[in-house]
Amino acid sequence: MPTDTPLLRYLQELQSELASNRDGRVADYIPALATADPALFGISIVTVNGTRYSVGDSDHPFTIQSVSKPFVYGMALTDRGVEDVRHRVGVEPTGDAFNSIRVDEESNRPFNPLVNTGAIVTTGLVRGDSEADQWQRIVDGFESFTGRVLIADEAVYESECETGDRNRAIAYLMRNLGMLEGDPEAILRLYFRQCSLLVTTDDLAVAAATLASGGRNPVTGRRALTENLNERILSVMQTCGMYDAAGAWAVDVGFPSKSGVSGAVIAVLPGQAGIAVYSPPLDVRGNSLRGIEVCRRLAGDFGLHPHRDRGHPAGVLRGAYRGNRARSTQARTDTEYACIEEHGDDLSVYEVQGLIRFAETEFLIGFIIDDPTRSRVVAIDGRRALLVDHHLIPMFAELADLLAASGRVLVLAGFNAPGVPPEFTGVARSFDDIDDAVEWWEDQVIATHFTGVGSESARPVTDQELLRGLADDDLAAVLAEVTYSTLDPGAFLAREGKPADCVYFLLSGQVSVRLGSKATLKSPRVAAFGAGAAVGELALIEGGVRSASLMADTRVEIATLTVEALDRIARDRPTVRATIMGNLARSLALRLRRANDRIRVLDS
Amino acid sequence: MPTDTPLLRYLQELQSELASNRDGRVADYIPALATADPALFGISIVTVNGTRYSVGDSDHPFTIQSVSKPFVYGMALTDRGVEDVRHRVGVEPTGDAFNSIRVDEESNRPFNPLVNTGAIVTTGLVRGDSEADQWQRIVDGFESFTGRVLIADEAVYESECETGDRNRAIAYLMRNLGMLEGDPEAILRLYFRQCSLLVTTDDLAVAAATLASGGRNPVTGRRALTENLNERILSVMQTCGMYDAAGAWAVDVGFPSKSGVSGAVIAVLPGQAGIAVYSPPLDVRGNSLRGIEVCRRLAGDFGLHPHRDRGHPAGVLRGAYRGNRARSTQARTDTEYACIEEHGDDLSVYEVQGLIRFAETEFLIGFIIDDPTRSRVVAIDGRRALLVDHHLIPMFAELADLLAASGRVLVLAGFNAPGVPPEFTGVARSFDDIDDAVEWWEDQVIATHFTGVGSESARPVTDQELLRGLADDDLAAVLAEVTYSTLDPGAFLAREGKPADCVYFLLSGQVSVRLGSKATLKSPRVAAFGAGAAVGELALIEGGVRSASLMADTRVEIATLTVEALDRIARDRPTVRATIMGNLARSLALRLRRANDRIRVLDS
Repeated sequence: MPTDTPLLRYLQELQSELASNRDGRVADYIPALATADPALFGISIVTVNGTRYSVGDSDHPFTIQSVSKPFVYGMALTDRGVEDVRHRVGVEPTGDAFNSIRVDEESNRPFNPLVNTGAIVTTGLVRGDSEADQWQRIVDGFESFTGRVLIADEAVYESECETGDRNRAIAYLMRNLGMLEGDPEAILRLYFRQCSLLVTTDDLAVAAATLASGGRNPVTGRRALTENLNERILSVMQTCGMYDAAGAWAVDVGFPSKSGVSGAVIAVLPGQAGIAVYSPPLDVRGNSLRGIEVCRRLAGDFGLHPHRDRGHPAGVLRGAYRGNRARSTQARTDTEYACIEEHGDDLSVYEVQGLIRFAETEFLIGFIIDDPTRSRVVAIDGRRALLVDHHLIPMFAELADLLAASGRVLVLAGFNAPGVPPEFTGVARSFDDIDDAVEWWEDQVIATHFTGVGSESARPVTDQELLRGLADDDLAAVLAEVTYSTLDPGAFLAREGKPADCVYFLLSGQVSVRLGSKATLKSPRVAAFGAGAAVGELALIEGGVRSASLMADTRVEIATLTVEALDRIARDRPTVRATIMGNLARSLALRLRRANDRIRVLDS
Repeated sequence: MPTDTPLLRYLQELQSELASNRDGRVADYIPALATADPALFGISIVTVNGTRYSVGDSDHPFTIQSVSKPFVYGMALTDRGVEDVRHRVGVEPTGDAFNSIRVDEESNRPFNPLVNTGAIVTTGLVRGDSEADQWQRIVDGFESFTGRVLIADEAVYESECETGDRNRAIAYLMRNLGMLEGDPEAILRLYFRQCSLLVTTDDLAVAAATLASGGRNPVTGRRALTENLNERILSVMQTCGMYDAAGAWAVDVGFPSKSGVSGAVIAVLPGQAGIAVYSPPLDVRGNSLRGIEVCRRLAGDFGLHPHRDRGHPAGVLRGAYRGNRARSTQARTDTEYACIEEHGDDLSVYEVQGLIRFAETEFLIGFIIDDPTRSRVVAIDGRRALLVDHHLIPMFAELADLLAASGRVLVLAGFNAPGVPPEFTGVARSFDDIDDAVEWWEDQVIATHFTGVGSESARPVTDQELLRGLADDDLAAVLAEVTYSTLDPGAFLAREGKPADCVYFLLSGQVSVRLGSKATLKSPRVAAFGAGAAVGELALIEGGVRSASLMADTRVEIATLTVEALDRIARDRPTVRATIMGNLARSLALRLRRANDRIRVLDS
């Protein structure tokens, strides 16, 4: 937990300000609750990233009471399915008090699972071969939400059992109406015991944050509930969570919440955080007075109302560029690059980021379809996508079909985030990352359009750009110093950290740059070069040690020129060095220009 | 409007599938509605970006009826304020029928503004000196939502007036209860006429998209309503919009909506889109049967339920880097750069993007506070921030205080988006863009820590890096060819497009690179150089024409060496060219390395 942040300071001030409010009355329908200290006051917030902020009595244990109801509803839904539960408990708000015995006259169902009638029915729906089994299932269920081992307060449990005649009446009525199966006394025991579970606001904030995270506990990382059931629980909490005055709550606060008679309130900011407050004094409706006020203040002070979302679907598109600005780490010869640049419009890359929901998908697909360049290859770089809603897969499949109808190809690259459904990349040609996708496209362009001598063909050392412009006798002097060798795949030309004392002219095959002195063919590739390229050439100006390893990807033929040999030649023939350095500067200037182009693309 | 996209195809299929459903009955309480063709069926969706998708009878006009109610509520709120309206109309859902005459017994208020009692009261609250004034205000109000001129259907209006006894009874009861002031007959005329406004689903989808965009019409760009009132209207629509069965609607669909007896339904996806459907046959509750089904299908097929949001607050942080990776366009000497790099930890830059709401702010501030580097200068690069919720300004102010307490400085750069409140940047030291902020920090580091000869001091031509390592007689030969000159601020050293035939050695003052042959001191700066730098040096290897203009920012002294002169010197002294080209290659290699570092930062 952070020890001093603006949010923590805010919560500390709020807690001490509201602590001075002495209104409200502690629940007294059972002796065990009536003895609660009205001054106790804890607030906890847990974000969907699992960060916790706690102030006041956030580790003081109290009985969970009605705050248990949405969680037990979730267990019943998990164990019995939505349809089975729907036949026995409705989802309609009611203006009645929480302990009303009234049910929906049309269907005989309790109005919703967050009033006592409904909660007793859902408790009876939790699976188990015996009462002990069911209890274990309930405790396990709660622990998946709180991430902490929980025990019941036996004194409160006994007290509830003794004074629970109204709930007893409800249970028998529910059995009479056919909504409850099994022994009502056993179900009541489970119900009372579950209401007596001891929790803290720290626990409940983690539980609320789990509901805010689509059912995945952000602290333990474990899923407590499926996403669909989680959505259902939040909807019921939103309309039925705060007893009556649901409309005013919807207007002033707006987020799903649930209160309990011990003085606890939880509130859920979907996609943001879970909130829990504990303060025993209750208002006339039976909600924690300070708990309500904390929610109202947080909603107002931080603009948390769910309808504030103004959205930014266009933000899904981080950037877009053509093939002439794309560049795989597979190096090409200058003439190959010229060919690729000439056909740059054949590829468009769209970089996406964040959540891909309905509005983002609509924007992205509309942008691609309206793009006047109409590139043959349409690649979406998804490495920064955090989530693709599985509902939207058909839209991308439709886009792939629509493009295919005019001979165009959809490519999905780098959609590897945990939030991307595995079937998503099945809708189109797919690559692990955009570098592979661009290399694949470059290969196509070269195969289709390139007519010169490419990096695939063997190239004599005299073709080297670094040696261009040398007079015949100068060239002969250099060639006399060059040594030839052949390497197998995986062999090192040079290792990271070793002296940089020569330049390698690549005559055939492919060489890659990889990080680490113990790199293998499986290490990440920084760049790759084909025949005609010079590698390790910065040795000529910098010396020192290699900053990366050079490795043969295939069988390669190389010609090696040492710095010492060049120094020797240049003593007699200074124009050799002038020419080679000029060529090197020209090549570096070209690469610097490409790098600056890339920076402009990335930094826009 | 797009003509062929996956979303449009989906809507076309949905429309033709549901068109075959012949259930439901057209409203017949007034003759003018009873004659509606039950086969009419239009669907329109307008996104928060203003893109429209329409299928079926989306341009067929119909009377707006009860879909007008949330908009008139908005006008009453705008004209009278929340408090005044709240005293006369509640916000609580009711299980009663839309034309129920029952009011809240405690307060005598209509339950909410979306039933007839409430809507008649809100109509009476719209300001105007006369009935004609009030009507003009209502029409203007609607037009700000639809962005199109609207007229009323006089036949329907007459028919409503004739058969409106129940509403007449409501109006008189409301005056009796003190909820309505003025002439009930005049208010009823306004009410009936407003229900008779002719609209299409295209109109209503724009109106719904306005509600989805925080009250700003995404097609006209005009604000129809303040953000706070917009939020209130959506809350009331969510709990009271679909007559009864609000709970089931909340679970299955979840987004705010409103239906009308002519067969229209609007639905709002906050931050995403507005939806409108028209299909006259109604279900037993009085909602458009196909309209309801379209909303259910859209919600289910695209995962639109508002509680699905799993959020990605961590996505607010696009990247972070230290001062050694930051680099203003103000070029420094190599020794200055070394000093800046040595003190790189003195600056941390945090790049943010998208919406800055509660959860994003919490994450960002927590990340900054927990960052172990604890840089003295903490800069937030906000150029990609689309919105900062004004509620969060105090959190950033608190962060600035908290940093200041330990001698640290918060810097806000580039927060220029329309969605950023102007007072936001007032909480800390602020710059128009991150380049200015980094330059300001670099200046501080140099002023505090730099001990060598910097780019602020005049530097003789012999200090030039390009000339380093030349033998004395070679250097003398070069100096003999150099010409000296002094330029005033704003003068060109070279213009874009002119031949690149010389290199300029900067001896004092500052020179900038700007785009365009007619650049001025106000044109965007690509880079800037101080004394000791060589500018235009690529002329030595590339020739051709200048790709940008070089301009004196201050009074500058320069020494110029032409390519032709260097060629002449090198004929006698080939080592001069070898040395200069080697220096140039070394300088380019350094810049390429920095550019690649920057690419790695940007591309991570």
